[in-house]
Amino acid sequence: MPSSLRAELQQAPALFENFLARFFQENAERYAYGDLFEPLYLDLTEFVGRRGKRIRPMLMLAAYRAFGGSRPIEDHAVLRSALSLELLHAFILIHDDVIDQSERRRGLPTFHKLVEERLGKSDGAARVGGNVAVVIGDILFAMALDTLRTTDFAPAIRDAALSHFLRYISDTGAGEIYDILLGTRDIARVSEADIARMYTLKTTRYTFEAPLVLGALLAGVSDDLLHELAELIEPVGLAFQIQNDLIEYQQFKGVDRLRQTDILEGKKTLLLRVAYDHLEDLDRSFLQLCLSTRASNDASVSKIEQLIDKSGAVGLLARRMEDLFQKAETDLSHSSFTPTQADGLREAFSLVRQQTQHTGTQ
Amino acid sequence: MPSSLRAELQQAPALFENFLARFFQENAERYAYGDLFEPLYLDLTEFVGRRGKRIRPMLMLAAYRAFGGSRPIEDHAVLRSALSLELLHAFILIHDDVIDQSERRRGLPTFHKLVEERLGKSDGAARVGGNVAVVIGDILFAMALDTLRTTDFAPAIRDAALSHFLRYISDTGAGEIYDILLGTRDIARVSEADIARMYTLKTTRYTFEAPLVLGALLAGVSDDLLHELAELIEPVGLAFQIQNDLIEYQQFKGVDRLRQTDILEGKKTLLLRVAYDHLEDLDRSFLQLCLSTRASNDASVSKIEQLIDKSGAVGLLARRMEDLFQKAETDLSHSSFTPTQADGLREAFSLVRQQTQHTGTQ
Repeated sequence: MPSSLRAELQQAPALFENFLARFFQENAERYAYGDLFEPLYLDLTEFVGRRGKRIRPMLMLAAYRAFGGSRPIEDHAVLRSALSLELLHAFILIHDDVIDQSERRRGLPTFHKLVEERLGKSDGAARVGGNVAVVIGDILFAMALDTLRTTDFAPAIRDAALSHFLRYISDTGAGEIYDILLGTRDIARVSEADIARMYTLKTTRYTFEAPLVLGALLAGVSDDLLHELAELIEPVGLAFQIQNDLIEYQQFKGVDRLRQTDILEGKKTLLLRVAYDHLEDLDRSFLQLCLSTRASNDASVSKIEQLIDKSGAVGLLARRMEDLFQKAETDLSHSSFTPTQADGLREAFSLVRQQTQHTGTQ
Repeated sequence: MPSSLRAELQQAPALFENFLARFFQENAERYAYGDLFEPLYLDLTEFVGRRGKRIRPMLMLAAYRAFGGSRPIEDHAVLRSALSLELLHAFILIHDDVIDQSERRRGLPTFHKLVEERLGKSDGAARVGGNVAVVIGDILFAMALDTLRTTDFAPAIRDAALSHFLRYISDTGAGEIYDILLGTRDIARVSEADIARMYTLKTTRYTFEAPLVLGALLAGVSDDLLHELAELIEPVGLAFQIQNDLIEYQQFKGVDRLRQTDILEGKKTLLLRVAYDHLEDLDRSFLQLCLSTRASNDASVSKIEQLIDKSGAVGLLARRMEDLFQKAETDLSHSSFTPTQADGLREAFSLVRQQTQHTGTQ
C-alpha cells in the first residue's frame, strides 16, 4: 500500500464518524413518525453511533482505494456505501441480541434493553422491548439498503452492489439459523464442517467479503476478479473466527466466569468441537453432560474449562489459525491481483488483526 | 374498466399461483444452504403458497393495466413485481406472528409454530421457533427486494420502484411499533388520531398504497399523479381497516369467544376508542378495568362486549366506513385521473370489498 493511501486511510475513521452523525441528523425528518417513534430514532442514533471498531466500513474504504477507485474517500457516495455496511451490521446486531437475549452491546444496554428500560417496570416490558427491537431491525435493514441505493455511482454498478448486498443478507441469515439450530444439538452431532460453514455464512460473508467485494466492485473491478477475491477471503474469515473463539475462551477463563458467553448459551464453537474430538471417551461424555445441562453453575463451568484445557484444543486451533492466515498470504501471492492490490489487501487484513486481537470482530 | 381488461384480470389468480410455485422451485438451488436449511425452505414454500386472498398482487396487476401498462399481465417482470408484494406480505406476517405469539395463519400453524413443532418437545423449542422465524423473515425481506430488483423494467423505473418499496417497509415498521406501544397504554391515553395513524402506517401503506402506486409507476405514471393516487388511497385504507375492526368484533361475539383476538391482546382498535368515547363515566371506568386486566375470562370478555354494544360504536363506525368509501368516490370523480383509470380504481376497490367483507384484509 503506497504511503499516500495509508495517510488517506488514517483520515477515514474521523471522516466516517462525522458522516454517520450527520446522516442521522439529516434523516430525522424522513423518520419523523410521531411522538412515540421519536425516542426510538434517538436510541437508534445512539446505538449506531457507539464507537465500534468499524471494521466493515474501514475495510470497504481500503478496498475501494486499493483497487483503484477514482474518488477520494471523503466522497459522499463512497462514505454512504461504507455507512450502508455499518447500518447492516447494526441491524444484524439488534436481531442477534434479541435472539440471544443479550443484555450488553459495546459496553451499553442492547437495543431491546434500552426499550425495556424506558417502559419501566410495566407488565411485559421485556417482551415489548424484544418486539420493538425486531421491528427497528427491519427498519434499519431498509435504511441500509436505501443508503446504498442512493449513492451516485453508475446505475449498473449500484444495481450490482445491491445484488451482492442482498445476497450477503440472505447468507448471514442462513448462518444465523445454523447457529440457532446447531445450538439445540448435542456436540457429538455437530461436525467441524457444520461449524465452519456456519462461521462463513454468519460472519465472514458480511464482515469480510461484503466490504472487500463492495469496495472492489465500486472501484470497477471485473466479476472474475470479484469472484477470486471472495474465494481468497474465506480462509481469512475462518481464521478470524477462530481468533474470536480463542478470545472468548480467554474471557470465559477470566474473572467474570458466569457472564453470558457463547459456551453457556449452548453455542457450538469450533473450540468445543475440536476439544470433543481430542478427548478420551469418558471425558467426552463428561463434556457432553456439562454442555447439555447448560447449567451456569461453578461446577459444570469449571469442568468444561478443565476439559477444554486438557484436550489441547486451544493450541491446535491457534496453529490452525496461523495456517489459515498463511494460506491466505500464499493465495494472495499467486493471485491475479496486481502487487498494489495485493499489498492493499495485506494491509487491510493486518489492520483488522491488530484491531481485533484483544476483543474479536464483534 | 373495459370488459377486455376485466377478462384479463380473471386470469390473474391462476397465473399468479403458477408463477409463485415455479418461483420457489426455480430458486431452490439459490437457497441451498445445506441440510438444516432445506426443511425451512420447504416450510417457506408451503407458507407463502397457502391460498390467501392475494389482495396485494391482484391490486398491483389491476393498477398496472388500468394505468395503461403496455405489457400483458402474464409478462414475467409484471408477475415478478406482483410476487415481490406477496413476499413482502409473508415477511410482515411472519414477524407479526412472532410478535403477537399467534398460533394460526390462514388456517394452519404460523411459521414459528411450524419450526417449533418440528423440534418436538425439546427444551426451549418455542424460543427457537420464534428466533428462526425472525431470521427467516429477514431472508424473505431480502428475497422480496431481490425479486423486484431483477425485473427487466428500465433501470430508472426499477430504481423508483425499489425506493417506494423500501419506504413502505419503513412505514409499515413504524406502524407496527405504534401497534406494540399503544398496546401497552391505557385506552384513555390513546387518541383516535393515534389509532388512525397506526392503521395507515401499519396496513394501508403496504396493502393498498404499495400495490396501486407500484402498478401505476411500472405503467409509467408521473410522480404527480402517483402522489395524488397515494392521497386518494388513504381514506379507502382507513375504511377497510374499520371494516376489519367490525369483522373482528363479529368474530369476537361469535361462538369461539376465548380465541385470540385483538381485543384480548390489548390491541388498541378504533372500535374500542370510539366505544370509550361514547360511554358514561362509570362505564368508561369499567371498560378500562376490563381491558387493563387483560384477563381472558368469561366475565371480563362479556363485560367488554356489553359495553361496546351499549356505546353504539359499531353503528357509528359502520357509518364512518361508508362515509370514507363515499369520500373516496367523490375524490376519484374530481381527480386528475382519466375515466378509464378512475374506473379501474373503482373496480379494484369494489373487488377488494367483495373479497374482504367476511374475513377482512388479513
